[in-house]
Amino acid sequence: MAYTIQTTSTGDFDRLVDATIDALESEGFGVLCDIDVQATLEEKLDEEFRQYRILGACNPSLALAGLNEEIELGALLPCNVIVYETDDGEIAVSAVNPAQLVGIADNDALGPIATDVRERFERVLESVGDGSGGSSDT
Amino acid sequence: MAYTIQTTSTGDFDRLVDATIDALESEGFGVLCDIDVQATLEEKLDEEFRQYRILGACNPSLALAGLNEEIELGALLPCNVIVYETDDGEIAVSAVNPAQLVGIADNDALGPIATDVRERFERVLESVGDGSGGSSDT
Repeated sequence: MAYTIQTTSTGDFDRLVDATIDALESEGFGVLCDIDVQATLEEKLDEEFRQYRILGACNPSLALAGLNEEIELGALLPCNVIVYETDDGEIAVSAVNPAQLVGIADNDALGPIATDVRERFERVLESVGDGSGGSSDT
Repeated sequence: MAYTIQTTSTGDFDRLVDATIDALESEGFGVLCDIDVQATLEEKLDEEFRQYRILGACNPSLALAGLNEEIELGALLPCNVIVYETDDGEIAVSAVNPAQLVGIADNDALGPIATDVRERFERVLESVGDGSGGSSDT
């Protein structure tokens, strides 16, 4: 099983990041963490890197349900959606596959929560992806 | 294999969070993300929750090495260290086990990077934990 679900898009990078944040909010996720990897690597290492953002998405109700099942779950939260330039000039939007992520916690009670998060992420990817209309396992 | 390595401490919660951040910085990690779970659940859901912080720790050189091996790795970054009140009145400091986390990417090239991160996290836990001096798998 792949650890991300993914779509691609073309167009303006920052606009796609904004659209992704909006789509996450429509699905009940707040973006609690927004890491600009390119800027961070430039600042810390003076390294050039492609445009790459890590958006840490948290649906408070689902997070609470998960933490009540598994108090250490915060070590795996929030669930990330990444937006980055691909080698062939497109922009990828990938969401971590929640089933894979929480799978390492090996707690069956988390399964339905992971499924709920995944379905929301699929709708987010569908709304920001180009063309063929939807996400796919990579 | 457990998905966190853990230690416990007593004393003031906020002071322990600060000590953890300092220890992470001494090991070359910046805290790129600091989520106050208690405050977030209070604000979003009007729910009372224990004190619980999620610190997203990133060592830029190791992150760059990992991303160069696996461009989607950002979906799993940063590596979290959590600090929370336990049911029996102590404070737990737990770091995600990087080997478990990047294990879902199934890319052998990430193994040495995960080992390096784990060794640093073990030193962080050792420096903030009480008593028996060190971290253990949970």
